[in-house]
Amino acid sequence: MNEKIEIKKKVLTKNDEIAAEIRRRLAVKKIVALNMVSSPGSGKTSLLEKTLAAMNDRLNIALIAGDVQTENDAQRLLRAGGRQVRSIVTGGACHLDANMVDKVLEEIDLTGVEVLFIENVGNLVCPSGFDLGEDKKVVLISTTEGDDKPLKYPSMFRRSSALIINKIDLLEYSDFSVDRVRENARSINADLETFEMSCRTGAGLDPWYDWLEAKVAEKKGS
Amino acid sequence: MNEKIEIKKKVLTKNDEIAAEIRRRLAVKKIVALNMVSSPGSGKTSLLEKTLAAMNDRLNIALIAGDVQTENDAQRLLRAGGRQVRSIVTGGACHLDANMVDKVLEEIDLTGVEVLFIENVGNLVCPSGFDLGEDKKVVLISTTEGDDKPLKYPSMFRRSSALIINKIDLLEYSDFSVDRVRENARSINADLETFEMSCRTGAGLDPWYDWLEAKVAEKKGS
Repeated sequence: MNEKIEIKKKVLTKNDEIAAEIRRRLAVKKIVALNMVSSPGSGKTSLLEKTLAAMNDRLNIALIAGDVQTENDAQRLLRAGGRQVRSIVTGGACHLDANMVDKVLEEIDLTGVEVLFIENVGNLVCPSGFDLGEDKKVVLISTTEGDDKPLKYPSMFRRSSALIINKIDLLEYSDFSVDRVRENARSINADLETFEMSCRTGAGLDPWYDWLEAKVAEKKGS
Repeated sequence: MNEKIEIKKKVLTKNDEIAAEIRRRLAVKKIVALNMVSSPGSGKTSLLEKTLAAMNDRLNIALIAGDVQTENDAQRLLRAGGRQVRSIVTGGACHLDANMVDKVLEEIDLTGVEVLFIENVGNLVCPSGFDLGEDKKVVLISTTEGDDKPLKYPSMFRRSSALIINKIDLLEYSDFSVDRVRENARSINADLETFEMSCRTGAGLDPWYDWLEAKVAEKKGS
């Protein structure tokens, strides 16, 4: 069905143009933009809640929370102390695109912002194809999902810069192996930086905070 | 972007035609066809493994396992005793479609088959829009994913006939409420039949087996 492929190409080209423009705008302001991706329920919002609690005094953080329906995640991030939180409800669409992000960025005062988190729709497939103008994609996987997921959904792991292995407090209740998931992920993308944590217990979060601060420092020096 | 919408309509119309034809073929042979949908890692393959172990002597079961990459799931189902197992590797596509199922059905001897399981790609969004010619969609959610998921991904729950709440052995380690997820799901779809189970411990599986046998008996009487 060539017609379908043609349209898909057009949509992606248009998306990439808008994403490139977003990237330019954020670069001028030296903002680290992170596109947070995962299956539904891997803990993207929990990680951002924890990050706000720990880092809100040290970093100027803005957040965009995308969902197919409801503004639940945006509300959670506001309750967690988010100063600038905006919601994108896709109304059925399975991923965010650059146009959606572009529109909502107009409502955010970017002056002084150091980190922009974009929480994508929970979906381990479609968001991998849509550049949002981010610096990096950060992919989460939880220990209850199975350690073969990088092999089954390779595109997302190939395009991500960091892998967060969440819910390590539940390791003893599953056959999930941290070593195996890391090995599987690195067979797809050898450069992936990995973190192991439990957003529920708070274990393992410090290296993530350090990484964030390092990225902000790098960006300011760039 | 009207051009995009037009193409999408054409794709869906073509899909629905093929799905209707599949449905007719399966109806003639009195086969119960179930489209198994969920996020990655909710336990679709584990449920089918358990179902094969318990029911393979009592029901003639064929299985199609869809994945973006790898034939891991099909191999697991073969090891679990599946007599006819076929794999669909979508190579990037985020859902199965009727054309893929149609092609692989040619390789399955449908004579005497009573239940056809079609395990979709792990994705709580896109598979909801593509009819595969099934009798029913069965949606799984695991207790580690959060009980708000029916509200955030309503289309899948609206189009499913049964909801399987898996991993109840992990309930005590999360804030997930079975009552709340059932309430959320039924606010979207009042007719959803629900099951609570742990494919790991085997708890709660009997009502699911009974339901399957009842659907086969209904079909034979139809």
